Amino acid sequence: MVCFGIDLGGTTVKIGLFSEEGKLLDSTEIPTRKEDEGSHILADICDTINLKITDKKIAREDILGVGIGIPGPITKDGTVLNCVNLGWGIFNVEEKLSAMLGGIKVKAGNDANVAALGEIWQGGGRGFEDLVLVTLGTGVGGGVIIGGKIIPGSNGAAGEIGHIPSVFGDDAEVCGCGKKGCLETVGSATGIVRETKKLLDRSVKESVLRDNPGFSCKDIFDAAKEGDELANEAVNNLAKSLGVAIAGIAAVTNPQVVVIGGGVSKAGKFLLDKIEESFNEHAFHATKNVKFALATLGNDAGMYGAADLILD
Amino acid sequence: MVCFGIDLGGTTVKIGLFSEEGKLLDSTEIPTRKEDEGSHILADICDTINLKITDKKIAREDILGVGIGIPGPITKDGTVLNCVNLGWGIFNVEEKLSAMLGGIKVKAGNDANVAALGEIWQGGGRGFEDLVLVTLGTGVGGGVIIGGKIIPGSNGAAGEIGHIPSVFGDDAEVCGCGKKGCLETVGSATGIVRETKKLLDRSVKESVLRDNPGFSCKDIFDAAKEGDELANEAVNNLAKSLGVAIAGIAAVTNPQVVVIGGGVSKAGKFLLDKIEESFNEHAFHATKNVKFALATLGNDAGMYGAADLILD
Repeated sequence: MVCFGIDLGGTTVKIGLFSEEGKLLDSTEIPTRKEDEGSHILADICDTINLKITDKKIAREDILGVGIGIPGPITKDGTVLNCVNLGWGIFNVEEKLSAMLGGIKVKAGNDANVAALGEIWQGGGRGFEDLVLVTLGTGVGGGVIIGGKIIPGSNGAAGEIGHIPSVFGDDAEVCGCGKKGCLETVGSATGIVRETKKLLDRSVKESVLRDNPGFSCKDIFDAAKEGDELANEAVNNLAKSLGVAIAGIAAVTNPQVVVIGGGVSKAGKFLLDKIEESFNEHAFHATKNVKFALATLGNDAGMYGAADLILD
Repeated sequence: MVCFGIDLGGTTVKIGLFSEEGKLLDSTEIPTRKEDEGSHILADICDTINLKITDKKIAREDILGVGIGIPGPITKDGTVLNCVNLGWGIFNVEEKLSAMLGGIKVKAGNDANVAALGEIWQGGGRGFEDLVLVTLGTGVGGGVIIGGKIIPGSNGAAGEIGHIPSVFGDDAEVCGCGKKGCLETVGSATGIVRETKKLLDRSVKESVLRDNPGFSCKDIFDAAKEGDELANEAVNNLAKSLGVAIAGIAAVTNPQVVVIGGGVSKAGKFLLDKIEESFNEHAFHATKNVKFALATLGNDAGMYGAADLILD
């Protein structure tokens, strides 16, 4: 018996074939065709799955189902709600994809929530039941797992931790969501670069970043690791915002483990330790038993979690 | 068939007798004897229950169980962790009370979480599945219900929303928990009075509160309702802090309904509307579908929720 785990992103679709035991047997990546209001996306996914079924000589009755992570809010019954970066409106993606696949069971979830599920199942949160995943990438996302299950939220918006109010007063920047001062404005890769530029403008400190006006988020971490004071201050500010936000999350859900993922988490233990330090400074004592871990599945977390939607 | 629902507080113990259908048939209140490290508390509860069983001629086999809300962190298996305001250490309260009651089933939960369960079952959150209760009283507590179930947290500390980091910088006061700037420092009855006093000191505005140096939290709301500008500013500051914190909670769990309870919530719709306004200003769009409601069970919420631990 096998299943498919699909991570539907704004740029590519990753389609994984998994054994019943959760082993990734094979994976394929196709572009996400967003033209024509994203109307080709599901057909492209079906073509790839059907090709794989033929290619691997899989009997249809041996397919347990297809799990899929969607980059937007999704309700418990599988209805996507205006997935703007795919061009999608409102429809039931589980029913539609299942019909297109000739009745194979389809389960869908929000991509960040599904990635959290992947990390708790086979990644950085393995062996735990209550987890919060914080994804630091182009945006800041997340997922909350309680008792081994994703908390989807009443409107599919649980785990949208990038939009926790985080910065107040004049320093608050406008977020992609339209609000001011969301965690994402300081915790995303672009937010980190912008905040560091502001810090450079305010400060007279020497910094290697001054010689590299087009510096990236990675450059900031590299400089900080090399002992650059200003870069370190920027990383400390980031860690402070994240630690405070995670302390707030912990006061709500009291997880066993906080897993930090996304491209920014490639900064590794250097960043993780600073976040944990800030967390311990701001967290309620009864929530301090939490373990901090790095995500380990990288870009495959979404596929794993999507497969777990079927296998669990 | 009947059950008992017990709300164990720092001052009194409320013991309710409930029908299978969740109707409160009878209730008794006894003092909480905290002397001798709280060692009389469970015996006093047993005496009251046994008296009630005799008095009401209840057959032991008709007792479905005893639910109890505890004022402190409690793990999933029923172990209380240093319930400081009862003088208790660490022990399994479910096993102990059950043994003392001759084997009757006992289920325990954190008092704020249990009150949240009561409110969703028979109170302000009736008819919903995903709820956050915010209790504004001597402290600020709360409870998170997802899919009709309490989220206890890995260490019994979920829903400890009074300890969300809320005030930063010089204005942050020290909380009872030892941290600075917890939501409780501005959202509890004492916190509201202290912040209003600070506002009076900073301002030259006329206010009826200046003629009443020993003003209470209720006096502030009464003055605000009468149009006192400074009192209104104090209430708006409170509502802002609460709205921001609830926006953060909503980005984590995305509830259907937020129920505001505790003594401070007697300020009623006047306060509720201001909190909702602040929430809508700070909340992520996909979480804005939330309904705001006042708790309706008052001091009985804990007994109801404790009964629901057994009846659900």
